[in-house]
Amino acid sequence: MRTHYCGKLRKEHIGETVTLYGWVDRYRDHGGVTFLDLRDRSGLVQIVSDPQRTPDSYQQSNLLRNEYVVAITGRVTQRPEESLNPRIPTGEVEIYADKIELLNGIRKQLPFQVATGNNDPVREDLRLKYRYLDLRRERMAQNMQLRHQVVKAMRRYLEDNEGFIEIETPVLTRSTPEGARDYILPSRVNEGEWFALPQSPQLFKQLLMVSGMDRYYQVARCFRDEDLRADRQPEFTQLDMEMSFMSENEIIELNEKLVCHIFKTVKGIDLPHPFPRLTYKDAMNKYGSDKPDTRYGLELVDVSDLLKDSGFKVFKDAISKGGIVKILPIPNGNDAISNVRIKPKGDIFGQAAEAGAKGLAYIRVRENGELDTIGAIKDNLTPEQKQEILTRTGAKPGHLLLFAADDTGIVNKTLDRLRQFVAREFNLIPEGKNNFLWITDFPMFEWNADEKRLEALHHPFTAPHPDDLGDLKTARAQAYDLVLNGFEVGGGSLRIYQREIQEQVFEAIGLSPEEAQSKFGFLLEAFEYGTPPHGGIAYGVDRLVMLLAEEESIRDVIAFPKTQQARCLLTDAPANVDAKQLKELHVASTFKPKVKE
Amino acid sequence: MRTHYCGKLRKEHIGETVTLYGWVDRYRDHGGVTFLDLRDRSGLVQIVSDPQRTPDSYQQSNLLRNEYVVAITGRVTQRPEESLNPRIPTGEVEIYADKIELLNGIRKQLPFQVATGNNDPVREDLRLKYRYLDLRRERMAQNMQLRHQVVKAMRRYLEDNEGFIEIETPVLTRSTPEGARDYILPSRVNEGEWFALPQSPQLFKQLLMVSGMDRYYQVARCFRDEDLRADRQPEFTQLDMEMSFMSENEIIELNEKLVCHIFKTVKGIDLPHPFPRLTYKDAMNKYGSDKPDTRYGLELVDVSDLLKDSGFKVFKDAISKGGIVKILPIPNGNDAISNVRIKPKGDIFGQAAEAGAKGLAYIRVRENGELDTIGAIKDNLTPEQKQEILTRTGAKPGHLLLFAADDTGIVNKTLDRLRQFVAREFNLIPEGKNNFLWITDFPMFEWNADEKRLEALHHPFTAPHPDDLGDLKTARAQAYDLVLNGFEVGGGSLRIYQREIQEQVFEAIGLSPEEAQSKFGFLLEAFEYGTPPHGGIAYGVDRLVMLLAEEESIRDVIAFPKTQQARCLLTDAPANVDAKQLKELHVASTFKPKVKE
Repeated sequence: MRTHYCGKLRKEHIGETVTLYGWVDRYRDHGGVTFLDLRDRSGLVQIVSDPQRTPDSYQQSNLLRNEYVVAITGRVTQRPEESLNPRIPTGEVEIYADKIELLNGIRKQLPFQVATGNNDPVREDLRLKYRYLDLRRERMAQNMQLRHQVVKAMRRYLEDNEGFIEIETPVLTRSTPEGARDYILPSRVNEGEWFALPQSPQLFKQLLMVSGMDRYYQVARCFRDEDLRADRQPEFTQLDMEMSFMSENEIIELNEKLVCHIFKTVKGIDLPHPFPRLTYKDAMNKYGSDKPDTRYGLELVDVSDLLKDSGFKVFKDAISKGGIVKILPIPNGNDAISNVRIKPKGDIFGQAAEAGAKGLAYIRVRENGELDTIGAIKDNLTPEQKQEILTRTGAKPGHLLLFAADDTGIVNKTLDRLRQFVAREFNLIPEGKNNFLWITDFPMFEWNADEKRLEALHHPFTAPHPDDLGDLKTARAQAYDLVLNGFEVGGGSLRIYQREIQEQVFEAIGLSPEEAQSKFGFLLEAFEYGTPPHGGIAYGVDRLVMLLAEEESIRDVIAFPKTQQARCLLTDAPANVDAKQLKELHVASTFKPKVKE
Repeated sequence: MRTHYCGKLRKEHIGETVTLYGWVDRYRDHGGVTFLDLRDRSGLVQIVSDPQRTPDSYQQSNLLRNEYVVAITGRVTQRPEESLNPRIPTGEVEIYADKIELLNGIRKQLPFQVATGNNDPVREDLRLKYRYLDLRRERMAQNMQLRHQVVKAMRRYLEDNEGFIEIETPVLTRSTPEGARDYILPSRVNEGEWFALPQSPQLFKQLLMVSGMDRYYQVARCFRDEDLRADRQPEFTQLDMEMSFMSENEIIELNEKLVCHIFKTVKGIDLPHPFPRLTYKDAMNKYGSDKPDTRYGLELVDVSDLLKDSGFKVFKDAISKGGIVKILPIPNGNDAISNVRIKPKGDIFGQAAEAGAKGLAYIRVRENGELDTIGAIKDNLTPEQKQEILTRTGAKPGHLLLFAADDTGIVNKTLDRLRQFVAREFNLIPEGKNNFLWITDFPMFEWNADEKRLEALHHPFTAPHPDDLGDLKTARAQAYDLVLNGFEVGGGSLRIYQREIQEQVFEAIGLSPEEAQSKFGFLLEAFEYGTPPHGGIAYGVDRLVMLLAEEESIRDVIAFPKTQQARCLLTDAPANVDAKQLKELHVASTFKPKVKE
């Protein structure tokens, strides 16, 4: 039986006989003495075997290789002065192995090195195919531990400090696609009908409030059949919460305490709080984004009012069509960013183009304070306009001012993207800063140009601001997102709890009364049986852990993720199934593989 | 803002002004004074309003009805002597309502009463359709709380006392049907291929052991597309655990501590431990079942050896064909169970027939010790045989001995069923007893007569007993089930961790090397990269909570269960989906609804 974990052995264990289990992390033969680092979940300890002091184990020790699985019994010994290793917690001791038992070997060459400290980059497809080896590596093993600690801290804070109860909601549920695509599966028993996997437990958690559960949480698996981006997965994990009888402000305050608790418990970080709050409108104005990274400045400046009558056609046209002109002021940008980079084929231009911009105007502030730009702009700016631009942007000699002029969406998207690009290039992002920020007062709806209808910016169960009930279409929502360093880590809202308002919102998004009844009739009916005011929030656990782990992809904090092609390279899922299975389910594949010619 | 939960108010709060939120549980007008019980998650408190003392709230209070949602601010007051209510925890106080705010009303007649203390039976279809109201009822609200407490106790014990870490495994995975039917869903991105929902995280948790995670747990949703029985659901919850480097005995001991902790924490019960252990063989002999209820005796007695040469054809034939003859001895059964009940059309006979028996023989022990039975038996028993039967069964005057003679499976199934039936009829099951029992040494395989092949009794990853490697087909498994009062609440095993043995087991269950490679190649390969010895267990959370809640169905401890027809009556899932959804998934329904003539 194991007596200790390897990584926990210290000076105070000297003299004890211990039994350890683990993997041979590194194996070295130093002139007739075998040294091996034994690794388990807790870390490493050095094992020594030689013909004099440990004759029983010496021969066995010579058969070992990296990643063999062994049980070792031995005496904890002080390391000699010259071999103390301050870099590892167990560096003051070593174990003289009285007995080494080989539990399992390895038969194949490792596809990549897993030894502790080896951080060589490995192709991701190999890491995913041999995920069980990848998870042995120090970084991934730590990420799994971190994720566990984060979820544990969440649960305990909510349970112990705030009286939340955990309730499980169904995974097999009804398809009500709003926004993202549902994963659906055929019912065998109810022929011709389909279950859907939940995109979130939204309706169930609201029904739990109708049930009087008062405060609910769940670490819930959610599913979206989307075309995957770098930080998306077909299944992802949400910390899902809902509470009754609380105001938006009370919910925000409770959640700040939760987040502070997580950071304190898991990373020892005292977050400054209360977190700043910014309305959606202000966020879009200042940063062109509803999830701005506020670790650095580079705030945008709207000059539409100033240039609406400009003789420069690009500005004037944009504004007259209802668009805007905004500036990204870049201190010291004049030297660093050449005209070539701003013009077609330049990298800055490329960033803007990807955001939909057709081009970028610029003004350079020279050492003498002169403004340098193309003639068409220079000639059309009055001295007062020039001065006002300098005042509003706070531009000084050396500044580069990048202008975007287009419809509001494109301008914001462009300058948001450039702002981030420039911040990285100029190393403006401070290390170790955790800038949390609430975004509030979202609009209820945004225009979906493809479908030619309003759609809910959050979801159609979000409550409109009580002051804005007069015109729902332009109403603000009682919705709030939590942003960390430019990532949306959580989002929530107060919910509608009155049938009439819910019906109005369904109508606003173009759902006919019949459709509303067929899809959400049970919710509308529930509102008639004593539904309390309620609201909630959901956190993207994968993303939050990714940020805490300082990783770039959520795949690095998920034990068994899918690729961006939605495949599991380890088990090779999805896969073909037996014809018998499909027959029992009353379905057939309509996919015709293309025959190669 | 809420200052208190209703159910928490006590004498020490007298004089305080409190703000409460909740539902009107009961509303009474007593001659110009309004009394209402306000209910929230924590319980009830009485609110009083009258024109003299609370003129501001009195008019509002008269508008209230049962299940209205209100906010109340008032003063906590000592109840007058004559209206103290010792039956509720808040029975010493009442609240004089200074302010009553109506937050939401109800517009329809309730489909059933939800007031606290009302335990009127309600049709289950109504309860499921209006689940949000059903969950307001005292019993269901308590069950949800209990379930939360159970899961919390599990997690905390494993995390705090045993160093387990929680890791999430995929829900979208690969179909490897072994035993039960998989739920499968079409992949949109990988055309023509399907994901499956996991029947358990078995393979992933084993791979986590290969990863060195050492001790893993998860409260995992699992899915089986089975024809539903009373205590089955399409999706259910498992406490799933796996650990490395532990013996069967160590795993069992750890799990006893876990279970004792749960019972102590949640119910205040000190379970006697260690729990008894019984081999599969002994369990089948004594009880005819591998999940015997040991709260009562009624142990079975095998008399095959004694009667193998009996002149009574039924006994002799059964044994000569390889079957057995066993007795269920029923103390005081002679008076209570008439011959009519044992013969065709009798209820006892019916029970036996449902288990597959063709009939039952019996012997009655009369007051004078005489044995009374049919002639064919009496004439064919020697005095020595009679004496031996009495000795083995411990039968005394008044006993009824029921004989089953058939193949072993049918005999055991029959007498197991009769044993339970008789225990209920004779009220032999003591209240409040929690008889835990480990069943060990299961056989590796059982014969599947339909498919004419061996199949794994647990699953094909179960390790054979090291003493039995010579003949796998008859080997015992290192498997263990935990039984509580006749219900299997947990089951686990040590796992195979060597490729050769895994291949032999696949072969034994009739999987060709090609099939094994195609379905489980990744597991076989993982075994070659340093897999530690490991084992685990999984608990049926729904069933365990059901037993703790003293409910008869797991539906009563699941917030939103499916019916036995695998439907959700609340959301009406499964449902039809849009043709567009199916097209995107490259699937079609082959179900042709029957047209009514």
